[in-house]
Amino acid sequence: MIKITLPDGTLKEFSEGSTPMDVAKSISEGFARNVISAKFNDTTVETVTPLTEDGSLVLYTWNDTEGKQAFWHSSSHIVAQAIEQLYPGVKLTIGPSIENGFYYDIDLGDRSISDKDFPTIEKKAIEIARGKHDFKMRAVTKAEALSLYKEQGNEYKVELIENLEDGTITFCDHDTFTDLCRGGHIPNTGIVKAIKILSVAGAYWRGDENKTQLTRLYGISFPKQKELTEYLELLEQAKQRDHRKLGKELELFTFSQKVGAGLPLWLPKGAALRERLENFLKKAQKKAGYEMVVTPHIGQKELYVTSGHYAKYGEDSFQPIKTPKMDEEFLLKPMNCPHHCEVYNFKPHSYKDLPKRFAEFGTVYRYEQSGELHGLTRVRGFTQDDAHIFCTPDQLDEEFRNVIDLSLYVLNSLGFDNFKAQVSVRDLNTPDKYIGSVENWEKAENAIINAAKEKGLDYVIESGEAAFYGPKLDFMVKDALGRNWQLGTIQVDYNLPERFDLTYKGSDNESHRPVMIHRAPFGSMERFIALLLEHTGGNFPLWLTPEQVIILPVSEKYEKYAKKVLNSLENNEIRALLDNRNETVGKKIREAEMNKIPFMIIIGENEEATNTISVRKHGGDDLGSISIKDFSDLVTSEINSTLKSF
Amino acid sequence: MIKITLPDGTLKEFSEGSTPMDVAKSISEGFARNVISAKFNDTTVETVTPLTEDGSLVLYTWNDTEGKQAFWHSSSHIVAQAIEQLYPGVKLTIGPSIENGFYYDIDLGDRSISDKDFPTIEKKAIEIARGKHDFKMRAVTKAEALSLYKEQGNEYKVELIENLEDGTITFCDHDTFTDLCRGGHIPNTGIVKAIKILSVAGAYWRGDENKTQLTRLYGISFPKQKELTEYLELLEQAKQRDHRKLGKELELFTFSQKVGAGLPLWLPKGAALRERLENFLKKAQKKAGYEMVVTPHIGQKELYVTSGHYAKYGEDSFQPIKTPKMDEEFLLKPMNCPHHCEVYNFKPHSYKDLPKRFAEFGTVYRYEQSGELHGLTRVRGFTQDDAHIFCTPDQLDEEFRNVIDLSLYVLNSLGFDNFKAQVSVRDLNTPDKYIGSVENWEKAENAIINAAKEKGLDYVIESGEAAFYGPKLDFMVKDALGRNWQLGTIQVDYNLPERFDLTYKGSDNESHRPVMIHRAPFGSMERFIALLLEHTGGNFPLWLTPEQVIILPVSEKYEKYAKKVLNSLENNEIRALLDNRNETVGKKIREAEMNKIPFMIIIGENEEATNTISVRKHGGDDLGSISIKDFSDLVTSEINSTLKSF
Repeated sequence: MIKITLPDGTLKEFSEGSTPMDVAKSISEGFARNVISAKFNDTTVETVTPLTEDGSLVLYTWNDTEGKQAFWHSSSHIVAQAIEQLYPGVKLTIGPSIENGFYYDIDLGDRSISDKDFPTIEKKAIEIARGKHDFKMRAVTKAEALSLYKEQGNEYKVELIENLEDGTITFCDHDTFTDLCRGGHIPNTGIVKAIKILSVAGAYWRGDENKTQLTRLYGISFPKQKELTEYLELLEQAKQRDHRKLGKELELFTFSQKVGAGLPLWLPKGAALRERLENFLKKAQKKAGYEMVVTPHIGQKELYVTSGHYAKYGEDSFQPIKTPKMDEEFLLKPMNCPHHCEVYNFKPHSYKDLPKRFAEFGTVYRYEQSGELHGLTRVRGFTQDDAHIFCTPDQLDEEFRNVIDLSLYVLNSLGFDNFKAQVSVRDLNTPDKYIGSVENWEKAENAIINAAKEKGLDYVIESGEAAFYGPKLDFMVKDALGRNWQLGTIQVDYNLPERFDLTYKGSDNESHRPVMIHRAPFGSMERFIALLLEHTGGNFPLWLTPEQVIILPVSEKYEKYAKKVLNSLENNEIRALLDNRNETVGKKIREAEMNKIPFMIIIGENEEATNTISVRKHGGDDLGSISIKDFSDLVTSEINSTLKSF
Repeated sequence: MIKITLPDGTLKEFSEGSTPMDVAKSISEGFARNVISAKFNDTTVETVTPLTEDGSLVLYTWNDTEGKQAFWHSSSHIVAQAIEQLYPGVKLTIGPSIENGFYYDIDLGDRSISDKDFPTIEKKAIEIARGKHDFKMRAVTKAEALSLYKEQGNEYKVELIENLEDGTITFCDHDTFTDLCRGGHIPNTGIVKAIKILSVAGAYWRGDENKTQLTRLYGISFPKQKELTEYLELLEQAKQRDHRKLGKELELFTFSQKVGAGLPLWLPKGAALRERLENFLKKAQKKAGYEMVVTPHIGQKELYVTSGHYAKYGEDSFQPIKTPKMDEEFLLKPMNCPHHCEVYNFKPHSYKDLPKRFAEFGTVYRYEQSGELHGLTRVRGFTQDDAHIFCTPDQLDEEFRNVIDLSLYVLNSLGFDNFKAQVSVRDLNTPDKYIGSVENWEKAENAIINAAKEKGLDYVIESGEAAFYGPKLDFMVKDALGRNWQLGTIQVDYNLPERFDLTYKGSDNESHRPVMIHRAPFGSMERFIALLLEHTGGNFPLWLTPEQVIILPVSEKYEKYAKKVLNSLENNEIRALLDNRNETVGKKIREAEMNKIPFMIIIGENEEATNTISVRKHGGDDLGSISIKDFSDLVTSEINSTLKSF
């Protein structure tokens, strides 16, 4: 008999050779029907792998990330088989699961696959899946493995196998198909009910541009057809909400080849939106006792050697800036923290001065390969809503709670109501990995966990995920399309205070090290605005949106009254725009809709005569005819309902 | 007889060989007594130089810059003679006049001069001056000149003479002293009534650090003792008002050796002050139809090759930033204009869209030798309050007037009421020097001059001072110490629109080039704040100053009432601070005075009992006991009297 521990702590005995599926069935037949993969003693196994020793077992269903990975990995086998059948003689290389779905890299020789071929491949793959073929792992010797692929003339698999150790090589069979594979499959092909090939792209063998270019097929699969349909709808929505597309349409930002890739130019509407976001945070930060500072975008190379950033970013990032006499070297700052440490060091501090909270909308520069750049989410220059809190270890508790309050205020004001927190703490088994005293770590970890509890956060604790210099808390925010974004990291740091020799005089008159907290509720203005664009589809919260109201006179006869309305709204601090072009109201409405302006005011004879306005909401709702004052109140109250003061 | 034209256009005849002094006497004996130097046909001459041809003559007194230069240049001869007498055998090198005074570089051998020796030198120099020795120019052959200095063993003068052409070499004699000299002296030494040696410094021969280090004596002289006294008082005031000293005392900014020289770190109070200045200008700019943009601090090297900035700044400035793969090169931006041109190029424009006015508080970086750095006035990174207006040639007139309005608004709001304008136009004799059509140049120059007239500016037109790419207007602002600062350049540009191929579609449906205007009313935030600090001595206008009010309870018994006062002021948007440290009121007042806080509110038993406050102004004025409301109104009205809305 072997002893199996389940995640809830239950310990059960099974006869040796029992499989994870046997364990699942012992829990319930219903549960077992949903189990599609398993992990035993931290190693991925098949659901049919005989267990021969004591250990802990985790069983996964489609609802688990690990379950989905097994599902998609298995689906890539099915698609590979379909390809082999449709394109005899192709050479398969690798086919892993990815965050959403899977891909397979194939050497098609002189053939090619285009999106026209996708339906045929999908049909063939589903046909195979319906055969309910079991996935079966089989150990092979290196010689056997090599012999199979040499026979097929598949130099890629041969190369892979040559790098493996004899005795560790396994194949996976299903139906008539065999692939070199480490394992991690669902029980059989029949579980896969829907398969979609999403795209085709070129990919170099082993990512090396000097090697053969292969064809990469991206696909995704689901246990229900309905789930695929929903996913494809989501993809279409995401395409419509792509911040690069919306940013262009709404004239928020642009890129210039001459200025350089990954370096956004903020157009007037985008710059104003950014400023509103900054002012919103500045106001809250001021109340929370932060002080703004301004520091340069470069610093001497030595500064970043001291901070450790040169070791981290130096070689892979923008290279040092030399000077005419070559005796000085500067770096574009990859982070604001070293500068803020030097601000702290401006004069000696006493414990009575602390905490000091220095905030800056600081633009930093980090080199990214051009292929990795993506709109505003992956750029080479971005502005962090950065702040660094320097406090005594005893103040950490309160400071952490205050920072969480601020982060929650930001998320709530911007319409994010679906998020979790992740607390990253030490791995207690590897104490040597961390700097700072055990006492301080305990204080900090407890401060974070207590704060998370007290603020009612939905949080998980991840052991061993802390950086070597301190524990942290991240917010994982789900957007309107269900995608997760990491936002608003709050990071405790014992490292930089050491490196910059920061001190304060304690009440004991002795010199002490302050603790540092790094925090940025938005993260970066660029990434946050991208997220906001995709989350809202460009329909920003009313307080933030570029134009709140557009006034559309039906003809130039009503321009004078329209201007009166405009003035009146502007006096109430409403951002209004007058469209007095010589166009039809229909066209003006269509354009205002495209520009996602929340309110359209239509002005004609009736409105002028009755001193009212006709209001139409973005999306079509008609608010009818109301007074300017009532409308102003409506706008103000809608703003106040989302934008509370901190 | 020769014909002499005077600056007012008068033409007079004189016998050949008449001197400038003869001409002066012919005008009036009184005037002649004040004439100390002259220029004939654009060449500096002595007042005793015989004139032998027709030409135009300008006569200078101490009140002219040229007169002062001759005065100080002559004074350097006197000081050199004093040195030779006091330190026999020293080797004189060069001794020019400078903006304020003169210097002389001397090889003292193994001797040295310290500030203890200054009185002796001054005494000796004044003794010489009182001898009323005439300055007399004398032509010498190269051989004679060389022979004199070789005999003296003065290798410096020998080197200088060797680089001169025979037939052009002159000496100047006075008393027993002779010096190699091109001329430009006052009539005699007796005019110099006061001489002060200001400082001593090291200076390399010919500025080359591989050559001998000489001793440089800085001095200044005046025609009246009273003027020297006043100047020394001004120097002392300037020292007290030095922005580096005040910036540290008021905790506005700091420099860090680790971050790097010339890269200011703005401390909380300074950053807030900067932001108030920025917001002040932003508000006015918004009303004036500007739109804010945000652009990166780097750009591809090619961008600046296109703009021409690489040719201008490239070699002498921060060197290109390479990337890990070495295939891309970026530069720190030395100017914002190329980026704004690319913003303009974001989409096609029609004449109906123009003018576009893009504004940005854009931080730029230019390398300066470390020896040239000076506080905030000479830095390596600074933020320009930059804007670029893109308009049609016909709009230039109105745009220029609007920009002048904005500049005047800035100067008035910040307490600068003493300024002139300088309009720089083409040299009509060298039309090839300029790009852009003659028609456009005329339009632009007329636009500037008309605008200057219309706005009632005190202006001068400087022919030939325009840049090759367009005419401009500069404000020359006199600060409280009488020093001139160039501020708020408004520059027309025909060059960048060409280089960036900027276009708009005209009403004729054809493609046209817009005109560009560069303008920055502050110039740079750094330099402007330095100027403001020195102009105001740190006593900023009330609307701008870091803390407007400090509340000083006489003991902790009144802290509660003090907090009530604080809240009440904060609710009226007054920046107030509560000093509730356990210190005496006397000490608190002294510190508040040092921090230049405009109002001190003293709170004790009487104030609490009568619900009033006792107010003391910075500098000592006692406003007595008033109600909080009356005080708030007072502050608000004082602010409104200097800070009108644009």
